[in-house]
Amino acid sequence: SINAERLLTRIRELGAIGRNDQGQLTRLAASATDKLGRDRLVAWLRAAGLEIAVDRIGNIFGVWQSQDNAGQSPLMLGSHIDTVINAGIYDGSYGVLAALEVIETLKEQGFAPVRPIVVAAFTNEEGVRYAPDMLGSLVHGGGLAVEAALATVGTDGTTLGSELACIGYAGTAEPGFLKPHAYVELHIEQGPVLEREATTIGAVENLQGISWQRVTIDGVANHAGTTPMAMRSDAGLAAARVGLFLREHIARSNAPSVATIGTMRFEPDAINVIPSRAVFTIDLRDPDEDRLRALESALSGFLDRLEQEEHVIVSVERLARFEPVSFDGAIVAAIEVSAKARGLKSRRMTSGAGHDAQMIARIAPAAMIFVPSRDGISHNPREHTDPADLVAGANVLLDVAVRLAGS
Amino acid sequence: SINAERLLTRIRELGAIGRNDQGQLTRLAASATDKLGRDRLVAWLRAAGLEIAVDRIGNIFGVWQSQDNAGQSPLMLGSHIDTVINAGIYDGSYGVLAALEVIETLKEQGFAPVRPIVVAAFTNEEGVRYAPDMLGSLVHGGGLAVEAALATVGTDGTTLGSELACIGYAGTAEPGFLKPHAYVELHIEQGPVLEREATTIGAVENLQGISWQRVTIDGVANHAGTTPMAMRSDAGLAAARVGLFLREHIARSNAPSVATIGTMRFEPDAINVIPSRAVFTIDLRDPDEDRLRALESALSGFLDRLEQEEHVIVSVERLARFEPVSFDGAIVAAIEVSAKARGLKSRRMTSGAGHDAQMIARIAPAAMIFVPSRDGISHNPREHTDPADLVAGANVLLDVAVRLAGS
Ligand SMILES: NC(=O)NCCC(=O)O
Ligand SMILES: NC(=O)NCCC(=O)O
Repeated sequence: SINAERLLTRIRELGAIGRNDQGQLTRLAASATDKLGRDRLVAWLRAAGLEIAVDRIGNIFGVWQSQDNAGQSPLMLGSHIDTVINAGIYDGSYGVLAALEVIETLKEQGFAPVRPIVVAAFTNEEGVRYAPDMLGSLVHGGGLAVEAALATVGTDGTTLGSELACIGYAGTAEPGFLKPHAYVELHIEQGPVLEREATTIGAVENLQGISWQRVTIDGVANHAGTTPMAMRSDAGLAAARVGLFLREHIARSNAPSVATIGTMRFEPDAINVIPSRAVFTIDLRDPDEDRLRALESALSGFLDRLEQEEHVIVSVERLARFEPVSFDGAIVAAIEVSAKARGLKSRRMTSGAGHDAQMIARIAPAAMIFVPSRDGISHNPREHTDPADLVAGANVLLDVAVRLAGS
Repeated sequence: SINAERLLTRIRELGAIGRNDQGQLTRLAASATDKLGRDRLVAWLRAAGLEIAVDRIGNIFGVWQSQDNAGQSPLMLGSHIDTVINAGIYDGSYGVLAALEVIETLKEQGFAPVRPIVVAAFTNEEGVRYAPDMLGSLVHGGGLAVEAALATVGTDGTTLGSELACIGYAGTAEPGFLKPHAYVELHIEQGPVLEREATTIGAVENLQGISWQRVTIDGVANHAGTTPMAMRSDAGLAAARVGLFLREHIARSNAPSVATIGTMRFEPDAINVIPSRAVFTIDLRDPDEDRLRALESALSGFLDRLEQEEHVIVSVERLARFEPVSFDGAIVAAIEVSAKARGLKSRRMTSGAGHDAQMIARIAPAAMIFVPSRDGISHNPREHTDPADLVAGANVLLDVAVRLAGS
């Protein structure tokens, strides 16, 4: 079994890096705080005797290999350490630090794997600063050219490539240089299912589709006091209708789809000026590709009607689109078997969140292990997982790693 | 008659001060660009031989008095030169520069008024940076203590008093030191009425009530992918419902009320995080105080229901509340008579916008003159008034000034 204290201490330690005056944790991808987190991670990887490699998109790898297994394609274990704004400490970091913990445990126990084992920490998984999300692993999986990825412009107007250079993590390795034999990612569930069912281990067999769009609505700025309601082209009111449409449409369709308007900006953003412009993002998800397409097309039809009804102009920009992903059945089964062997209750499940595993699944067999999230809360400082569950998940990862990298 | 060329040139010249790279005009109260506009105005006032006084809240006065009339209470003509964000060039500046033009014309014609005539440019009329609007004239009219006004915190976190000191317009005169005999303000209508009726002069007899509030809605941040629609406390969706409620409520009540949500901010404002907070302003107006109260109370009831229905917490902060104002009948009549004498079509009307005249009306007889706004557009760079109408309005102001300051 893994060293519980070492793992939990590191999670807390990494979780303390990147807090602001008010104690809020924000380590956006390729930011100054991300650099601090990366530096700490690299120090730990080095201390564990791993070889460090950083690729051109900033993905960090800690490689454990011996003379005997150096020629074999590696088992890769990993996740990400970037965070959202005002984040919890487990999302991503847990998977990376548990991967390191698994390698240290195996080394200490004198285990000699038949293939190298690699810890991976992928760049910009959250997608909050640079869209799309899972960008580093997408590049690693061959889904996006590294040049295009480096040119991505962020919400703050910065360019990912320059920011990576700035923090010293524009590496030299060509993305994808490590083609894994298999990939396993341990992560908190971030949803309510495992807790509700008092189940410790989720064997994640698939992951829902993700559709991200940025919408700009142009109306006409005018005086808030002198302009009759009937004569307005209010971009803000038009934007308000979009979120409510999506919620009502999903409720009517009785689907498990989710829709979120997470960002919103008005122009000129003045108290007595009718908004001339509203810019916002729409995040749509569904485990079923046909239903996700139907939701996208319902939205698109609504935006057309909105132009007529609100006398506005609507433009839509695609930020991310990933189809639902099925994970590798053999690894999912290995997770179930490993959980059972440790007396842990498990269930197969879908991931509501996007994960690096879905991108690595393009080039290697991959699957994920989930542990419960208290109250199903994530992307929130209240994100929490019971330490016993964190340890249980890491032990399942250990056992799965032994199965996949053992003799 | 006034010197049309001189007036129009100055309007254009002042309108060129405070433009950004993209040519957008923004001279927010007490900002660096406001300072540039103020400096230019003061230079013109000085060149016209007026005595300059600046009071503690930054109101600028240009006083024309003689040994003969120095003891009399002055006729005050004025408006403001601060602007909204991405503004037009006429809102406010027109009234101030026309007041100066009237004095210069009278001086050139050797007119000897029985009372001093003063040009006034009041601080922070727009209310975009510091609430409430009409703040400088409100202080002048005794409606707000100067200390409280100076302590006002702006949308950008600055304090009005420090910013005035910073731009060199924290004057020494005690606000209200000039008690006018009468006050007349010339302004563009900013609405569609005069243009629609092909009428050049509005004799403004009253002004609608204004209610400004800032609303904060607190929900719960959570993951956009993993959180089922039914389990959300989405502050952004709750905010969206407020604007739509107000529009529907006004449509149902068939009142001339207007409601505007001009500013909106989400927290954490990230694409895959359900908004934990939405902060926005509500601007409500109605010419009838009872109807305005009824609208406020309908809103308040809706916000209570919203807390239950959306599982959010709503807090409301009052930013401004002004009852409808009736102007002085004798001045309104003088405006009508003056328009008629020049062969200009006029009509009595209500002001949809707030104006400094409504604050000075607390301490002196006051009224306003409106000229048409093309397409009823204001608080927009497309704001426009025909030069012939600008000149006509200034001539009516001239004639009214002669009536009020003549022998
Ligand atoms: N796991 C996780 O929070 N990923 C972020 C990408 C997303 O699902 O929005
Ligand atoms: N005239 C004018 O635009 N005043 C600004 C104050 C307001 O009416 O909102």
